[in-house]
Amino acid sequence: MKKLINSPETVVSDALKGIEASDSNVRVDHENRVIYRSTKKDAGKVALISGGGSGHEPLHGGYVGFGMLDAACAGEVFTSPTPDQMLAATTVVDGGAGVLHIVKNYTGDIINFEMAAELAADTGVEVRTIVVADDVAVQDSLYTAGRRGVGGTVLLEKIVGAAAEEGKSLDEVAELAQRVADNVRSMGMALTSCAVPAAGKPTFDLPEDEMEIGIGIHGEPGRHREKFTDAKDIARQLVEPILADLDFTDSENIVMVNGMGGTPLLELYIVFAEVKALLDAAGVKISRNLVGNYITSLEMAGCSLTILKADSDMVKYFDAPVVTAGMRWGE
Amino acid sequence: MKKLINSPETVVSDALKGIEASDSNVRVDHENRVIYRSTKKDAGKVALISGGGSGHEPLHGGYVGFGMLDAACAGEVFTSPTPDQMLAATTVVDGGAGVLHIVKNYTGDIINFEMAAELAADTGVEVRTIVVADDVAVQDSLYTAGRRGVGGTVLLEKIVGAAAEEGKSLDEVAELAQRVADNVRSMGMALTSCAVPAAGKPTFDLPEDEMEIGIGIHGEPGRHREKFTDAKDIARQLVEPILADLDFTDSENIVMVNGMGGTPLLELYIVFAEVKALLDAAGVKISRNLVGNYITSLEMAGCSLTILKADSDMVKYFDAPVVTAGMRWGE
Repeated sequence: MKKLINSPETVVSDALKGIEASDSNVRVDHENRVIYRSTKKDAGKVALISGGGSGHEPLHGGYVGFGMLDAACAGEVFTSPTPDQMLAATTVVDGGAGVLHIVKNYTGDIINFEMAAELAADTGVEVRTIVVADDVAVQDSLYTAGRRGVGGTVLLEKIVGAAAEEGKSLDEVAELAQRVADNVRSMGMALTSCAVPAAGKPTFDLPEDEMEIGIGIHGEPGRHREKFTDAKDIARQLVEPILADLDFTDSENIVMVNGMGGTPLLELYIVFAEVKALLDAAGVKISRNLVGNYITSLEMAGCSLTILKADSDMVKYFDAPVVTAGMRWGE
Repeated sequence: MKKLINSPETVVSDALKGIEASDSNVRVDHENRVIYRSTKKDAGKVALISGGGSGHEPLHGGYVGFGMLDAACAGEVFTSPTPDQMLAATTVVDGGAGVLHIVKNYTGDIINFEMAAELAADTGVEVRTIVVADDVAVQDSLYTAGRRGVGGTVLLEKIVGAAAEEGKSLDEVAELAQRVADNVRSMGMALTSCAVPAAGKPTFDLPEDEMEIGIGIHGEPGRHREKFTDAKDIARQLVEPILADLDFTDSENIVMVNGMGGTPLLELYIVFAEVKALLDAAGVKISRNLVGNYITSLEMAGCSLTILKADSDMVKYFDAPVVTAGMRWGE
């Protein structure tokens, strides 16, 4: 697999150099691989940190900045960061009002963030943890007990980040995060595999005429494989399991059609049009939407759908200003 | 080739439905395949239109909105729009202050925009045309006489769009556009081919251990093929021909590392870090930068480098507010 890298061993550290050089809103602690805001920390503000394996772009580093995260820990590609990294991030952002750890439900992330929270507590930092487990595809999976954490994480970081910016307390921020986590659902699919640089070969094989429905963001097996159909049918296979899992008919809803990395925007818009037609027919309102690459799997071709059943607070915080590399509006 | 589409014939029309449904800032004339601003047109403002083959995302439709284009014409994938489309776009945006046509240097685009300009003149609309030909890779190519128009178009649309928003006259806007076009240079490369939906197969073959230096955004042949090296060497092969073509040592410079579509952001940041090291060594200052997918070739893996030798006006207009699907800040 050809990749625009210098060596598989230096992918993350080399990329962090580029992130720091290109974005004056963030700084990088290269030793601990922590991306954090370049602005002075605010003593009254709850800090948000997240992190995980690299390769789910622009998550999480691209969401560090005003209105979203205070810091992100970059693990190796598709590999959890260490507790030390998470502790370093927690320490660098804590201004005294406490820190929220936003954790996607993968066993490695869960264990390491738990350890980091304990270490931080020992130093007197108050930490709360929110676990995102929004993937309706499978109950347990290769790297998780329970559902996987995927696209819902993006919406949670946006919404909860705005609440923290407004000066909400750690209790309030954690409660809102739980409400978002409880009300968000996702489902993904892939047309091709991706290749982790260190492995040097595709993570899995998918025949030229097949697709995988319900795939995870690391290429973990989904629900089933079948012959490739078309955008309309794929949209249906993403929408139906989400609507079967939660009632979205009587609420504001925030809908995200996310690219897995290797799918052109043109195709994501085609999927969005099909998703919208299905939601219209089901009486599910789209109050806000995102279409683009928000949480990828390197260069995998495919997409995922995320729907958040939003209350008025969530819509207000979604609309609030954000200034990050990956999401920016309303400044 | 599996793609998230319904049929090769309806790719562009289906995507336009998704664009309209997802972005309240634009409307779509589906018959003429014109994306235009949803706001009322301003009689005193010069209007900017562009267009070209679809598949170079988010160009051009994603750059319609406050601070950039007033309308964009979407051709079939990698195929020039027709003069009728361009005339419809010109008519829908003209408020009386004149219209600037921004044309990438491809023979089809040139001929069709020329015809549209003549037709518009017949209806009393004053039209000026700026041709972008920034690709230093080759002198003439498969679809062009002279250099190809590539990434420089993105920077030109941003900068000139801001000047038009400020109320500059058609003469002033056209003069600024010419200054940008004269001072911008690009060079691209590819690791893989892309596949046009209607063709259903890769545009070209590139062996698993080779790369093509100087490739065009439709997969047109570049300067040469060679064995794949690494990000550092590739950055050098993009930087050197650009610096050899124009002196960037005594100016503000706006630098864009653009993904061809199928290359993860992680890799683009690695390339940016290498480009910055080379520019630092050459005494070329980076005043502003963009890293991401700004003008793609569907799902091609690879990247391009664009450098604009900017004067203070250009930097000011680059920084000015923009609210589009593809670029947004400072609102």
